[in-house]
Amino acid sequence: MQGGTNLLKVRDFNQQVVLETIRGASGVSRTEIAQDTGLTAQTISNIVRRLLDEGLVVESGKKSSARGGKPKVNLEINPDAGYALGAQIDRDEIALVLLNLGGQPLRRVRHAMPAGQAPEEVVRLLAKSAKVLIQEAGGVDRKMLGLGVASPGPLDPENGVLYEPPGFKNWEEVPIKQMLQERTGYPVLVDNDAMAAAVGERWVGKARGTDNYAFVYNGWGLGAGLFLEGHVYRGATGTAGEFGHTSLDPNGPECECGNRGCLIRYCSPREIISAVERRLRAGESSSLLYSWLKKPGQLDLATIRAAAIAGDRVAAEELAASGRMLGRAIVGMVNLLDLQMVVLGGKALGEAAYIYRREVEEALRKILYPERREVRVELSCAGEDSGAVGAASVVLHAAYSPRLMSLRSA
Amino acid sequence: MQGGTNLLKVRDFNQQVVLETIRGASGVSRTEIAQDTGLTAQTISNIVRRLLDEGLVVESGKKSSARGGKPKVNLEINPDAGYALGAQIDRDEIALVLLNLGGQPLRRVRHAMPAGQAPEEVVRLLAKSAKVLIQEAGGVDRKMLGLGVASPGPLDPENGVLYEPPGFKNWEEVPIKQMLQERTGYPVLVDNDAMAAAVGERWVGKARGTDNYAFVYNGWGLGAGLFLEGHVYRGATGTAGEFGHTSLDPNGPECECGNRGCLIRYCSPREIISAVERRLRAGESSSLLYSWLKKPGQLDLATIRAAAIAGDRVAAEELAASGRMLGRAIVGMVNLLDLQMVVLGGKALGEAAYIYRREVEEALRKILYPERREVRVELSCAGEDSGAVGAASVVLHAAYSPRLMSLRSA
Repeated sequence: MQGGTNLLKVRDFNQQVVLETIRGASGVSRTEIAQDTGLTAQTISNIVRRLLDEGLVVESGKKSSARGGKPKVNLEINPDAGYALGAQIDRDEIALVLLNLGGQPLRRVRHAMPAGQAPEEVVRLLAKSAKVLIQEAGGVDRKMLGLGVASPGPLDPENGVLYEPPGFKNWEEVPIKQMLQERTGYPVLVDNDAMAAAVGERWVGKARGTDNYAFVYNGWGLGAGLFLEGHVYRGATGTAGEFGHTSLDPNGPECECGNRGCLIRYCSPREIISAVERRLRAGESSSLLYSWLKKPGQLDLATIRAAAIAGDRVAAEELAASGRMLGRAIVGMVNLLDLQMVVLGGKALGEAAYIYRREVEEALRKILYPERREVRVELSCAGEDSGAVGAASVVLHAAYSPRLMSLRSA
Repeated sequence: MQGGTNLLKVRDFNQQVVLETIRGASGVSRTEIAQDTGLTAQTISNIVRRLLDEGLVVESGKKSSARGGKPKVNLEINPDAGYALGAQIDRDEIALVLLNLGGQPLRRVRHAMPAGQAPEEVVRLLAKSAKVLIQEAGGVDRKMLGLGVASPGPLDPENGVLYEPPGFKNWEEVPIKQMLQERTGYPVLVDNDAMAAAVGERWVGKARGTDNYAFVYNGWGLGAGLFLEGHVYRGATGTAGEFGHTSLDPNGPECECGNRGCLIRYCSPREIISAVERRLRAGESSSLLYSWLKKPGQLDLATIRAAAIAGDRVAAEELAASGRMLGRAIVGMVNLLDLQMVVLGGKALGEAAYIYRREVEEALRKILYPERREVRVELSCAGEDSGAVGAASVVLHAAYSPRLMSLRSA
């Protein structure tokens, strides 16, 4: 059942709508905010005074209006009004960034994560790194809003528990939120990597002001973070965005989920490496990668990407084939959800992301239905850090975004 | 940019939330409404008085409370407080129903639609039928809320214009909303059949109180009507729910959209008939349908369904094969959107709907990821009329559902 709403909440909501309007523009006047939001001049004036008092917003360059009348006072977010930390936990690496309220990363660090690392070790390392980043930046501690953690699923974002993400041994039911809160003293929010990356792209990246889009995150798993009608979409049980097990071929390779021809079978590093190795074994001796046949088990995705960029046909063709299958799945998602934009990111794309982008664009051009819509394909602004920047954005988003759902009291 | 909200709208919204609560329950007290909605007893009391005065709600059976205290006064929707008409325009048939506010169909009628029928003819026929239904029912005219129209897309729901639905010749840019408004004098709302069926299922059917579900409508086209987080989801340009062109096999049959292996190629009547005919020609002489080989072009889907129900192996296997492909596509959608329920309906399923349901359930059991969720598969409560009942529900829904989005003023 839906809950009702009340006055106090409406005031909070309107304040966040005004803040969102200021954040979305690069300099906007009170009059323009009133036009954009439909709120009265008096309401805007009250809210802006409150935001200025709280230091969240600053007045900037008094532009003379075009008609030469009273100079126009612009309002901007004060980037130093708040900060957030964001951590990406990955199978082989931990990344940590420090973001300001304006969305700029101030500091970042990466640590290799040895296989089989215990959760306690990771928490200790993250807490230590956070302290170092905060000390280096100087003067941010008092305004720290919290620490966001992005991780491959499955996980429970509400309670901040990880349930043995793929490739993480001995990580059954890790209460990472509680562990990190106790060790750092900061509020901690946990989200899956695709969802966090989607929030990040909306907060600081290519999807600013875009209400219907998906972030397709190709890391160790393959997930979609969905923003629908301007809001994060989580689904009935919080597991929305499972994308890697989209069926693409009933006669395709077997998947550990019990199905055949799942998207992940065409996009994961392991599968691309196997496909390349098969071609090398079949005698593609002109490939730059041919010598790797002598080092079984040592060819990695980064090497294949580098070969593709250097012009190697086998490497380029296999990455393109992977991108084509991704494109087929993405077209299905765009058809179903009528999205305006798809953002590609995650570590598995790396510097070959442009190949994936090209193939996805090609698929949209060829098989989108109905055809007339325009759908943009973008590469994540945060590159390899899209998970960590996203995790920090989740904290900023939770603190400052207008959430219509929060109007409901039940 | 998001719009702000104001007091008057909050009052309307709360009234609709209360109405929705009463509608969703079969008898509910003021105290229970307060608990469900989080609104104060005083607010509930004011709203309920207004709803009683307007005749939208009636007090019913004063149950004694369990503890033997003051008898509990229950509130219920007054089913005769309003009525709506719903029309389904299909390639070969027009259906019209009269629904009351309680969601019961009071009258219904069907007309065969000869191929090539002009829009003006269809409008004239609908208006005449509407008049007859209203006269037969008696006493509903004054409380008629409007006429809903469900049609295969592509269409523009906002302006009520149809753009040559598949199979409709000379139906380019038909302003059906305006035409029907002029002829009937009622407000007209137009929606695509899958979307309308989804609204109908939520208003009167299996999806009452279900916030995340899809209605998969298999008529002449194949579409999905999406209800996400309790609201109709339309996407960025209003074309959300395109499902028939989901890619299921890169080596599958060619589709007119330019792709291969689209879902529609496994589910449309034409394709199922062709598949059966291929098997008959290949010598499946024991099939009940074998004699149809002598009547080329005359075998239809209804006959195949009847044969399957009568135990014919060829017919049953081909319908099951079609259902399996539908199941693969539906699992992808459920994975992506984390739905609680999928409702199947539309004329192409007919009395063989149970075969599709079985195959979709089987697919969810086998290849859903992650596995632990429970997803219900239901057949539409409105059967063949799911489009028409849905169209009438669109009118009721527009009049009486709490729409959080309407809180925004921009």
